[in-house]
Amino acid sequence: MKNNETILLGHGSGGRLTHDLISGLFVKYFRNELLLVQGDSALLPHLSGKLCFTTDSFVVDPIFFPGGDIGKLAIAGTVNDLAVSGAIPLFLSAAFILEEGFPLADLEKIVQSMANEAENAGVKIVTGDTKVVERGKCDKIFINTSGVGTLHTGLEGIVSAENVQPGDKIIVNGYIGDHGMAVMSARNKLQINSPVESDCACLNGLISDILQNHTTVKFMRDATRGGLGTVLAELCQHKTFGINLLEDKIPVRENVRGMCELLGFDPLFVANEGKVVMVVAAGSANLILSQLQQHPLGKDSAIIGEIVENHPGKTWLITSVGGKRIVDMPAGEQLPRIC
Amino acid sequence: MKNNETILLGHGSGGRLTHDLISGLFVKYFRNELLLVQGDSALLPHLSGKLCFTTDSFVVDPIFFPGGDIGKLAIAGTVNDLAVSGAIPLFLSAAFILEEGFPLADLEKIVQSMANEAENAGVKIVTGDTKVVERGKCDKIFINTSGVGTLHTGLEGIVSAENVQPGDKIIVNGYIGDHGMAVMSARNKLQINSPVESDCACLNGLISDILQNHTTVKFMRDATRGGLGTVLAELCQHKTFGINLLEDKIPVRENVRGMCELLGFDPLFVANEGKVVMVVAAGSANLILSQLQQHPLGKDSAIIGEIVENHPGKTWLITSVGGKRIVDMPAGEQLPRIC
Repeated sequence: MKNNETILLGHGSGGRLTHDLISGLFVKYFRNELLLVQGDSALLPHLSGKLCFTTDSFVVDPIFFPGGDIGKLAIAGTVNDLAVSGAIPLFLSAAFILEEGFPLADLEKIVQSMANEAENAGVKIVTGDTKVVERGKCDKIFINTSGVGTLHTGLEGIVSAENVQPGDKIIVNGYIGDHGMAVMSARNKLQINSPVESDCACLNGLISDILQNHTTVKFMRDATRGGLGTVLAELCQHKTFGINLLEDKIPVRENVRGMCELLGFDPLFVANEGKVVMVVAAGSANLILSQLQQHPLGKDSAIIGEIVENHPGKTWLITSVGGKRIVDMPAGEQLPRIC
Repeated sequence: MKNNETILLGHGSGGRLTHDLISGLFVKYFRNELLLVQGDSALLPHLSGKLCFTTDSFVVDPIFFPGGDIGKLAIAGTVNDLAVSGAIPLFLSAAFILEEGFPLADLEKIVQSMANEAENAGVKIVTGDTKVVERGKCDKIFINTSGVGTLHTGLEGIVSAENVQPGDKIIVNGYIGDHGMAVMSARNKLQINSPVESDCACLNGLISDILQNHTTVKFMRDATRGGLGTVLAELCQHKTFGINLLEDKIPVRENVRGMCELLGFDPLFVANEGKVVMVVAAGSANLILSQLQQHPLGKDSAIIGEIVENHPGKTWLITSVGGKRIVDMPAGEQLPRIC
């Protein structure tokens, strides 16, 4: 691949250029026996257990940012959607919409990054698609990944918001707001003393460790678009319980807090791409916390609040000085194209 | 939904507007018990049999055209990829990338069209995603559908290009080139005496009828981008057999032929969205043909050629006056954004 080569409309034709792109790039990096067949669909090996199926499109701007890129994000996002559903992520699809003129070298970097992240997470990219649109008709590159996985044995009906009850503890596996502020600083080319890195990561290993040892996890969600605040507001919406969130227990890095103050964002609503929110039975909360802390992606885990009987349907943020405010889903958009 | 409402960036925020869009539009039309759960992934009911998994993104321009729209296309395209793999299509995902300012009324029309087509095909849309990009950063709407289905019993290793051999017959289920010319005429607002309609349709019913009655289908592919010519050129590439294609047996409508001549296209390479190419054992070709012809989507089916021993790796088009020319995969792009 020469340095100055770019995507042509012909790469999306279904003809020779498409075939060259598939074999020279996608099959080269995603290499696995299922993808090599290159049929109209991938025939999966026998799967035992119930199946989970999910999809996500990625339109992040910029496509490269500290701590990741659109490719890494596309793998982690879909892997995490399966993992927080209690499933073992197994097979992904990858569909690309490319802008005519997009540098092939950038595409190669992104595909390589997807391949690395997929390998780390133990998932295979088994089927794909490539479309090319004319210059100016999309913004560089959009990626859709869909995924299938099998539910961890014995988990059906266990990880369910229906089981959440007053007294349960809320855990997050580390610092919040990193991804949003990393993308924001890259987008605006901000000069920051201590740059923020995205937390973009596949959480299936971390989550699997917990699910294999504990049956007291009642709810999990990855706090992506909308952030931690939206996940919790959504969790107790129309429910018979409320949530108390302890502001000084929520891990926020100093540089993220600084950027948020400067730019007028609330870290509670800033996107993460490697954070899971868990609701667990009170009795096992400390055990789960210490197990999370042993994992590289969970070392800064913290218990940040609990499920309460009063103020049902509402999430309250209890500040360090004892004040409180309601955490509500934001109506509009804080940060477009964060993922 | 008011007539003048449009997509806002907030519809992709993951917050309140996203939720309103999901419940007010997607869940309303795609309504099924699996989608209603609205988890991070859909938990599928127990599936017996081997699984097929596929993905496709749709960027067709214009989004509405005679005989269909981007929504109908997004369902048919993925259903057909599963069907030609010998699978029964069951569950689809639907992921939308929307341009800020896109009319909600158009989105509703498209979602309704997807719901209708999914119902016709007997598939359920069980999981989804919505992203919004700023005005000018995509062209109105792009849709990704991924799909899972189970392989028809006993078909593994049967429908396989490995089994194709000299003497086998090639069948197509009707007129070719309709989709490409329908989109082309809509795109260029051509005034044509007898307008062309897209053949966009889900073929799973038609294909299933054949597979349940015949075990002599050796190869199936839907002739989309790249058309019939590309499918056949690809089929015999690097193989020990060649293909003879009989020009005067290939169904091409008069108005499609006329448009192609006028615009300089070869119908062989024009996209279809409701055409399957089958290679079947010679002995059962007539039986399969007559069964195809009994189905509304197969009434114009024809045997259009055969697998031959000579000229291995090459497809020859035999003209009505006995001439011949090689059918090769086009290098570039005839018609960008046809699907």
